[in-house]
Amino acid sequence: MEQLFQVVGTCPQSAARAGILATPHGRVPTPAFLPVGSQGTVKTLTPDELRTLGATVILANTYHLYLRPGVEVIQELGGLHRFMDWDGPLLTDSGGFQIFSLGHLRRISDEGVLFRSHLDGSEHFLTPERVTELQEELGADIIMAFDECPPYSHDLGAIRQATERTHRWARRCLERHRRPDQALFGIVQGGIFAELRRYSAGFIASLDFPGYALGGLSLGEPKEMMHATIEHTLPLLPEGRPRYLMGVGSPEDLVECVARGIDMFDSALPTRVARNGGLFTRQGRRSILNSCFQRWEGAIDPACDCYTCAHFSAAYLHHLFKCEELLAYRLATIHNLRFVIRLIEDIRRSILDGSFLTFSEEFLGHYQPTDAEARAEQKRKWLESRRRKQLPDG
Amino acid sequence: MEQLFQVVGTCPQSAARAGILATPHGRVPTPAFLPVGSQGTVKTLTPDELRTLGATVILANTYHLYLRPGVEVIQELGGLHRFMDWDGPLLTDSGGFQIFSLGHLRRISDEGVLFRSHLDGSEHFLTPERVTELQEELGADIIMAFDECPPYSHDLGAIRQATERTHRWARRCLERHRRPDQALFGIVQGGIFAELRRYSAGFIASLDFPGYALGGLSLGEPKEMMHATIEHTLPLLPEGRPRYLMGVGSPEDLVECVARGIDMFDSALPTRVARNGGLFTRQGRRSILNSCFQRWEGAIDPACDCYTCAHFSAAYLHHLFKCEELLAYRLATIHNLRFVIRLIEDIRRSILDGSFLTFSEEFLGHYQPTDAEARAEQKRKWLESRRRKQLPDG
Repeated sequence: MEQLFQVVGTCPQSAARAGILATPHGRVPTPAFLPVGSQGTVKTLTPDELRTLGATVILANTYHLYLRPGVEVIQELGGLHRFMDWDGPLLTDSGGFQIFSLGHLRRISDEGVLFRSHLDGSEHFLTPERVTELQEELGADIIMAFDECPPYSHDLGAIRQATERTHRWARRCLERHRRPDQALFGIVQGGIFAELRRYSAGFIASLDFPGYALGGLSLGEPKEMMHATIEHTLPLLPEGRPRYLMGVGSPEDLVECVARGIDMFDSALPTRVARNGGLFTRQGRRSILNSCFQRWEGAIDPACDCYTCAHFSAAYLHHLFKCEELLAYRLATIHNLRFVIRLIEDIRRSILDGSFLTFSEEFLGHYQPTDAEARAEQKRKWLESRRRKQLPDG
Repeated sequence: MEQLFQVVGTCPQSAARAGILATPHGRVPTPAFLPVGSQGTVKTLTPDELRTLGATVILANTYHLYLRPGVEVIQELGGLHRFMDWDGPLLTDSGGFQIFSLGHLRRISDEGVLFRSHLDGSEHFLTPERVTELQEELGADIIMAFDECPPYSHDLGAIRQATERTHRWARRCLERHRRPDQALFGIVQGGIFAELRRYSAGFIASLDFPGYALGGLSLGEPKEMMHATIEHTLPLLPEGRPRYLMGVGSPEDLVECVARGIDMFDSALPTRVARNGGLFTRQGRRSILNSCFQRWEGAIDPACDCYTCAHFSAAYLHHLFKCEELLAYRLATIHNLRFVIRLIEDIRRSILDGSFLTFSEEFLGHYQPTDAEARAEQKRKWLESRRRKQLPDG
C-alpha cells in the first residue's frame, strides 16, 4: 500500500505544513477540513454538492449510526460509502465524545461504557474492541480509537484517570484492529494540563498509530489554552504522521492551528451556525437576519465563488430565513462550507509557495472573530438545548 | 408578439390536447404541471434542480410576497425572476384564494378586501386594481385575476354572490392591466353548481382573456363532482386558449383532467406529501417511514430517473426521515416533482403519438390512488393545523 501520509511542503516561519493523505478512496491534500455528517449526511447537502464545494473527506459518527439505522443495516447495504453515496474518503469518529456527553445516561468502567440511547432509552454496552469492529463494519478509510473525553472543567485527578483509561483503550483498539485498508488513528487526551498532555502524547505516539488526533479541546476553554496545548503536544508526535485536531473549525482557528502544525480539522460549527443564519465573510461572521440585509442587492460575500453567492442576493437569503424556508439552511450551509474549504485551500497554497505567514497575517487582520463572550454564550445555549433534549453533544 | 397559445395535437378519443404556451421567458409545452413556490422558492430546491427536473413554469403567490418581503423590495431588486434566480416562465396567483381562507381575519366588500396579515396582524386593503398592479410589479409572465373563492360547502346563494363579484372584479383587473408582455388569465368560479359554472364560464369567456382558469375546485368535494364541473365548464371556453385547473395535482387527477381538456395544473400536493414522507410510485403513494423500507436496498421507484432514485436506496431515505434530516425533505421533493413532471411529459407524448387513451388506461390501471377517506382526512388535518396557526390555506 502507498504510504498513508507525506509532507510535501513546510513553512519556514511557523510549524505549518502541507501534505497528502493517501486513502483507498482517494488522496486528500492537507491541511484539510472535514465537513461533519454524523448521521451519514452533511445536513441539507447531497454528495454531489459536497464534491462541488471541494470537500475531500467527510466525517460520520459511529455512535449515531450504531443507534440508527444500526451498523448491521449499513453493512448489509454495502457499507457506509455506498449507503450515503459518497465515494471519496470517509472518516468515522468512534463516538466516545458523544457517549461521554450523555452524562447521567452512562456508566463507565475499565471494560467499557454502559449507556442508554438518547433515542429510546435502550441500554447498550460498548467496549474499545466493539467500537473498533463497528468501525470496520462501517468501512470508513480512517477510523478513530475509542477514548474517554471528560468535560474540560474536571480537575486534574479526574482528567488523569480518563487519560490513563484512554491509553489502555488505545492499545486494545490497536490490538483488535484487523482491516489493513483502514487507518486507525490514536487520540491524545489530557485536558488543558501541559504535563498530562505531554505524557499522553508520548504514550499514544509510542503505540505507533498511522495518525494522531488531539481530543478534548474546543470544549469551552479559552483559545490561548487550546493553542498552548497544541504547542505542548505536537513536538511529541512523529513528524511524518498526520495530526488531526478534533472538533475545531472556526475560520480563525483553522489559520491559528495550521500555524501550530495541525493537518486535519473537523467541526460542525460552519454548518450549525449557517442554519442559524450566521454567514462567514472576509470581515467576520454576519447574521443574515439583520435588517441591514433586507434590501441588500449584492451577495453576502461578493468575493465568494460558491453557488449561493453566485446566484442570490443577501436580500433573497434574508427573505428565506425570515420565512424559515428550508432552502435557506441549504444555501447558508453551501456558503459557510465553501468559505472554510476555500480558506483551507488558500492556506495550503500559501504554505507551498512560501507565503503562509503573509497570508495568515492578512486573513487574521481582516477577520474579526466572534468575540469570546458571545461565542461562549452561543456554545452554552446550544449545549444546554441539546442536554435538555438529552441529546449527545454533537 | 408571438401567439400566446397554440394547440399542436389532440386526442381523437378524449378532450385531451397538447399545446405550446409562448411566454417572454420561454415556451411551455402543455399539458404542464407548475411546481408551487409561494414565497419565491419551491421548498428545499434550487432553480438549477427545478430545471433538471424538467420544470417549465413555476408558480409564486402575490399574497405571500406582498406581505413578505414586500412587492416593492422585489421590484427594487429587479423583479421576481431575478429575485429567485429563475429565468424561465413564471406565473403569479393573485392571492385571492389565500386571503379568502383567512376566515375571521378578513372583511370583503365590492370595492375589495380588508384583511389582517397572518404574520403580524397588520391591516391591509386590496382591490382587484391593486392586485393587478402588484402582479405587474412582480413581473411574472402569466398573472391571475383577483377572484373570490368561497369554501365549497357554502350554499348556492353565497356561491352565486361570490361568483358575481368575481365577474365584476375580473372586468376591473382587465381594465387595470397595462403590461402587454404579461398574460392576464380570467378565473371561472361557481362552486359545484353546474348552472352557475356554465354561467360563470360564459361570462368570463366573454371578457376575452388570453387564458382561463378554473378556481374553487379540489377544496374537498368528491372527485366525481370535480370531473363533472370540468365537463360542464370547458365547452364554454374558447378552444384556442389555455385552460388552467388551479390547485390540482395528484397523479391520477392529472391523467383524468387532461382527458377532460385541461392544459395546466398547479398543486403543492407533490411537494407537501414529499415532506411528510409520502412518495409516489407507479403503484401509488408509499410512506417511506414504513418499516418495510428499513433495509430496502433498491430505489423507492426503480423505474424513476430522478437524482434521488439514481443515487439512494429506500433504506437511506427511510433513515434520513427517521432522523428528521433536512436532506430527507429535499430528496423526497425531487422524487415527487420528477414523478409528476415525467407523468405530464409522458401524457403529452402519448397525445402527440395518438396513444393517450392506452397510456391513461394503463397508468390508472396500475396506480392506486390514496383512498378518498384517507385523502379527505389528510386534507382536513392539514387545513386545521394551518388554521390553528392562522395561516392561509396554501
